[in-house]
Amino acid sequence: MSERVLRVGMLGCGNVGAAVIRLLHEHRDDIQRRAGCHLEVARVAVRDLAKRRDVPLDASRFVSDPMEVVEDLDVDIVCELIGGNEPAGSLVLAAFDRDKPVVTANKELLATRGRELFDASDAKGLDLYFEAAVGGGIPLIRPLKESLTGERVRRVLGIVNGTTNYILTRMTDDGSSFDDALREAQRLGYAEADPGADVDGHDAAAKCSILASIAFNARVVASDVFREGISRVTTEDIEFARRLGYVVKLLAIAELDDTERIAVRVHPAMIPATHPLASVRDAFNAVFVEGEKVGELMFYGRGAGGDATATAVVGDLITVARNLVADARGIGCTCFYERTIRPMVEMTGQYYILLRVEDRPGVLAEIARVLGDNAVSIKSVWQEGTGRDAQLVFVTHRAREGAFQQAVAELHALQAVEEVRSVLRVEAEE
Amino acid sequence: MSERVLRVGMLGCGNVGAAVIRLLHEHRDDIQRRAGCHLEVARVAVRDLAKRRDVPLDASRFVSDPMEVVEDLDVDIVCELIGGNEPAGSLVLAAFDRDKPVVTANKELLATRGRELFDASDAKGLDLYFEAAVGGGIPLIRPLKESLTGERVRRVLGIVNGTTNYILTRMTDDGSSFDDALREAQRLGYAEADPGADVDGHDAAAKCSILASIAFNARVVASDVFREGISRVTTEDIEFARRLGYVVKLLAIAELDDTERIAVRVHPAMIPATHPLASVRDAFNAVFVEGEKVGELMFYGRGAGGDATATAVVGDLITVARNLVADARGIGCTCFYERTIRPMVEMTGQYYILLRVEDRPGVLAEIARVLGDNAVSIKSVWQEGTGRDAQLVFVTHRAREGAFQQAVAELHALQAVEEVRSVLRVEAEE
Repeated sequence: MSERVLRVGMLGCGNVGAAVIRLLHEHRDDIQRRAGCHLEVARVAVRDLAKRRDVPLDASRFVSDPMEVVEDLDVDIVCELIGGNEPAGSLVLAAFDRDKPVVTANKELLATRGRELFDASDAKGLDLYFEAAVGGGIPLIRPLKESLTGERVRRVLGIVNGTTNYILTRMTDDGSSFDDALREAQRLGYAEADPGADVDGHDAAAKCSILASIAFNARVVASDVFREGISRVTTEDIEFARRLGYVVKLLAIAELDDTERIAVRVHPAMIPATHPLASVRDAFNAVFVEGEKVGELMFYGRGAGGDATATAVVGDLITVARNLVADARGIGCTCFYERTIRPMVEMTGQYYILLRVEDRPGVLAEIARVLGDNAVSIKSVWQEGTGRDAQLVFVTHRAREGAFQQAVAELHALQAVEEVRSVLRVEAEE
Repeated sequence: MSERVLRVGMLGCGNVGAAVIRLLHEHRDDIQRRAGCHLEVARVAVRDLAKRRDVPLDASRFVSDPMEVVEDLDVDIVCELIGGNEPAGSLVLAAFDRDKPVVTANKELLATRGRELFDASDAKGLDLYFEAAVGGGIPLIRPLKESLTGERVRRVLGIVNGTTNYILTRMTDDGSSFDDALREAQRLGYAEADPGADVDGHDAAAKCSILASIAFNARVVASDVFREGISRVTTEDIEFARRLGYVVKLLAIAELDDTERIAVRVHPAMIPATHPLASVRDAFNAVFVEGEKVGELMFYGRGAGGDATATAVVGDLITVARNLVADARGIGCTCFYERTIRPMVEMTGQYYILLRVEDRPGVLAEIARVLGDNAVSIKSVWQEGTGRDAQLVFVTHRAREGAFQQAVAELHALQAVEEVRSVLRVEAEE
């Protein structure tokens, strides 16, 4: 067997980084057979040199300046696990400058500066791998980018944020409020002290743009993605969903429409309780892919966690090492096309609306007129309670988002409507 | 863009082959960008030259002698879709002899002569890809072989045969008998006129051995796999399963035990109704992968059908073409280790037993003694009916297969037992 050694320079050594170092050590024999060389961690940049870390690596390998790792002549492959836009972006570009391939798990960076990074890696013919950026340990990027090349993907529908899925699972199973479920998620380490990136859908939007870029071979950035978080979802909505045969999930949806425009959105939605995504519980992730020929595929697993994510990073490191040994390069940027992003108002979908209304004759007629005037047709309606507690629940047929939002604005203004309590999209085949 | 052309020689042009030719034609621009070259079908070997085929290809490209395709100097890549052991095996070896990489969907060939084929391809440094051999259009081989290289897989649990899953779904949902469900599957084209390969588990066993070989990096052949079909599963078993909170599925199970031996088996089993595989219905396939670090992953989709399977074949053709253009080679055989196959009698598992018994005092004690004497401990038991219809249903705790089979043999001999109506394995975490 080859005794060649390739050296990895790590940027960051948090949960994932430490798990990567442990995996590279524990599986070193397997890895040598797979990569055709030894993979050794040469240098690790960390913020706090004093911190004790549970990794099989001598303290002398740690440095505090990440650029030192990138510039180290001993480092053959750079593994970026710092996260965020900067300094991560500059460090990755500096690695390419020095002819070093990069493995990263940085969804935010890829979702905002993917084109710049791929231009730099393609210009140098260097690998840029990022399996861990979406879905943690679930193989997603490689299947989409390499296995499904014979297919045209029309739609990707995923639960890609474990924190929000955990919160919605608690609300569904235990009847917890959003606030209580969030506190529970924080207690268990599923949610950050500042939970905005997760609950407001930023994390899911970044992942959505990455999946869309690969699925539709056109660059999509995070800011292209329509985004709505889960903080306004109530236990009442979840209970009405249950009665209607639905489950509420935070979905990342990327679609290629008939005119080859891309629609990308992240928002809570009701999906049929029989849909495979409905049974994805707790912090699990799952991505549903619909292709023209292959039909429906689903990839399911743990979307986060140091160990799970580390398996994806190590898989990428092995591939990059194998390519270096073979003097070859893996697949580069596959955004071959320029495509337009379809504005959200042009989307068509079904909606659920919950209204608190005056309890008097004629109210339903007034509301129905507003919906009808905006070409929103009603699929089902029922009334709950009476007097001051009178509520109306509507589910619409497919309507245009713009028209629907106009209808909601008019409902707000209607005297008969005391409150528009909730509006949720319904993702179902009519 | 490159105007280089690589030429594919097809062996076989059935449902999958015709769909491959159509896909290569329809997606030719996409494919050129992905592969870095044009992919053209140069020659197709078919059994019946007179048969009309719905493919965008001139009749002059068809020949009746498959060796003519392999030997054609114009053919750069051989795509084997004949199936079966021979002549497919000789043709694939002949392709390697002539320095041509091969894409195949032939599970039977890989499951019986995988080592021979990989030895030949490795010796020549030629690609051998076979994504379509397991799970039709579901990306499985590449994720297991390339994405999960950073992981140690401990267990693979799958529904890999669409025909039997369709039959069991009909039996479960409609209460159909096995015979009626089989006839329905045949009417819909899901089952062959001679259904043995599917219902007796041969197809699943071949796929199980392929998955095990990749997951555990050691060669496993079809005959290593313990195999039991579904023809003895009754509606009664399915009804008892339902009452116990289980669903009956034909499972392919590959495990690496604590001593690093491989256990491989295909048989009908009860799985908890809450398990993700329980909701895999009709002709769909799904494979559950359990890794040390990544936890549980699932891959789900259409496991058969010409179009779905063709997407996997075309994905492989694109990869092989890309490698030829780059003068590189994809990953070869990954069976790095020699591992022992654990005999089925050493397996431990839970069991369900349905007995017709004499309705008199002391019967339960006699049966319980036989089980106890063989170290099979009872988890639950109930009695159904009385008099000549008296039945006993047992579910055991984990027991050793050998001991359990001995107990069943002794139950057969027991006067109190009029009939051992059913025995099924129960796959659950105790």
